[in-house]
Amino acid sequence: MSNETKPYAIGIDMGGTNTDIGLVDRDGHCLARKNLPMCRYTEIGAYVADVAAAIHQLVSDRNLTFSEIAGAGIGAPNGNFFTGCIEHASNLAFTGVVPLAKLLGEQLPVPVALTNDANAAALGEKVYGGARNMNDFIVITLGTGVGSGIFADGKLVYGHDGFGGEVGHTILHPGGRLCTCGRKGCLEEYASARGIIQNYREVCEENRREAYIEADCRWLTEAANKGDMMAIRAWEVTAWHLGIGIANAATTLAPEAIFLMGGILNAGRWLIDPLRAIFNEHLLCMQRDKIAILPTQLNANDAAILGAAALVQL
Amino acid sequence: MSNETKPYAIGIDMGGTNTDIGLVDRDGHCLARKNLPMCRYTEIGAYVADVAAAIHQLVSDRNLTFSEIAGAGIGAPNGNFFTGCIEHASNLAFTGVVPLAKLLGEQLPVPVALTNDANAAALGEKVYGGARNMNDFIVITLGTGVGSGIFADGKLVYGHDGFGGEVGHTILHPGGRLCTCGRKGCLEEYASARGIIQNYREVCEENRREAYIEADCRWLTEAANKGDMMAIRAWEVTAWHLGIGIANAATTLAPEAIFLMGGILNAGRWLIDPLRAIFNEHLLCMQRDKIAILPTQLNANDAAILGAAALVQL
Repeated sequence: MSNETKPYAIGIDMGGTNTDIGLVDRDGHCLARKNLPMCRYTEIGAYVADVAAAIHQLVSDRNLTFSEIAGAGIGAPNGNFFTGCIEHASNLAFTGVVPLAKLLGEQLPVPVALTNDANAAALGEKVYGGARNMNDFIVITLGTGVGSGIFADGKLVYGHDGFGGEVGHTILHPGGRLCTCGRKGCLEEYASARGIIQNYREVCEENRREAYIEADCRWLTEAANKGDMMAIRAWEVTAWHLGIGIANAATTLAPEAIFLMGGILNAGRWLIDPLRAIFNEHLLCMQRDKIAILPTQLNANDAAILGAAALVQL
Repeated sequence: MSNETKPYAIGIDMGGTNTDIGLVDRDGHCLARKNLPMCRYTEIGAYVADVAAAIHQLVSDRNLTFSEIAGAGIGAPNGNFFTGCIEHASNLAFTGVVPLAKLLGEQLPVPVALTNDANAAALGEKVYGGARNMNDFIVITLGTGVGSGIFADGKLVYGHDGFGGEVGHTILHPGGRLCTCGRKGCLEEYASARGIIQNYREVCEENRREAYIEADCRWLTEAANKGDMMAIRAWEVTAWHLGIGIANAATTLAPEAIFLMGGILNAGRWLIDPLRAIFNEHLLCMQRDKIAILPTQLNANDAAILGAAALVQL
């Protein structure tokens, strides 16, 4: 059976808190899954052994053989497709450069590939989601950080060294807010969960209103729903920053659509309505009204697993 | 003879003032050329007839036949590769949408292709210049405007509609200087010839010194050479804006190198030394010291013709 016709793939979503492992079919259904809490692991050997064991279990539970599995794809923070390594991920216990694809490959009879989580998200959208018929699109992941995966002419943009697609770290406000990357003014500092709360605090300060001290993105959405003008304004300000940031990516790449993914989208119209308007306003005239901003068409629970699986099923 | 083995191509560089037409060999030598002043033409039919006549002349002068010519490539302002049209170019007498590739194709026995001048520059660098062995690189053209052509994984990034690669119109300073495109804060307004003079004026104003009223880029370079601190500072400020702008493109695309092209490069070390430092400083840590900023390796006189010819010789 050639790889293109193998009916299943394994998707591994490696995060700071959990690793989720799923068995995925070609239509993008996650048929079964396992979870490994990351707090169990301080060294990579034990982690890899447990991931491999979970995959063997998933395959045998469904009475499958590895000849029906195209491979195992891993979406990991700071994952580099070219090297198969996780490189200096700040939110993992495994420090330095970890050759995870190689280590896991030694314990599985199928190919293993690895990329970062945002690239995996874009692959998932292409293989199983709303970008199936698109060749040029961008996926923006909104969460603790702002990630992105870029497709140009039907291929994921890895760049020369595998680090392509860091739209979240383009500098939107030179000399602006200090980013976790050490530079100033990155888009991420204005459109991540952290950035949004900072936007809210600044809106309150400008309006001489006291900010709710425990505000998070969920609270901000609820507050907006209740008519809290500071919360509504915070979403508008977020839309302004994000709209210009993704308009810049669109000006550079001329995509057909930009897909958004992540829990922050639960803000619904408070974010998406002003975002579409501001994005459009900041495009060059020949692109105006032509580039769609769309929510991901992948199920939120499965998106990360699907993205990882897509890496070996594209 | 297949197209790949045809030894010659025609390159057509269409500008606001002149159209330069050259016969180019596979090694990137411009063997002969013709020039048509644009002031002669108010309607497209006469222009196309003269371009075609000039090409026939170039071919017959060298005792060649069209079977040895791979085709004719056109680099034109607002040229769209996908449609073969010039779309609303503000610096040409021909208004609206002009199907130039089709019109010229009707008068030549070889394929005709068209793209914008910055994309042509990138194609020229790939086929004949310093990017021959690179798959991921960006060419930035610095002149009246700031243009760019992007290669990702060995292919020019046209995007969904042919308008990819407008790095000069990414917004560097939201709400900043009004750009000719109608939006505010585009990189072009800080790093084009026009933008550089504005930088100089602002530097003089900040330092309460009178700006030289007739300052242009050539004067600014000469003044810097003579030790004029306002001129030196103007180049540093330009490098700061341009450095951040192209660092953002590099963060998005992870290229191996960024090539610079255009008369502004005559500023030499006054621009390039601070530019390299500022660019590097604004990259993500894993890319720092890894992305070269290089002057084009195409001869300035022939670069635009070579770029256009590359379109049919890639």
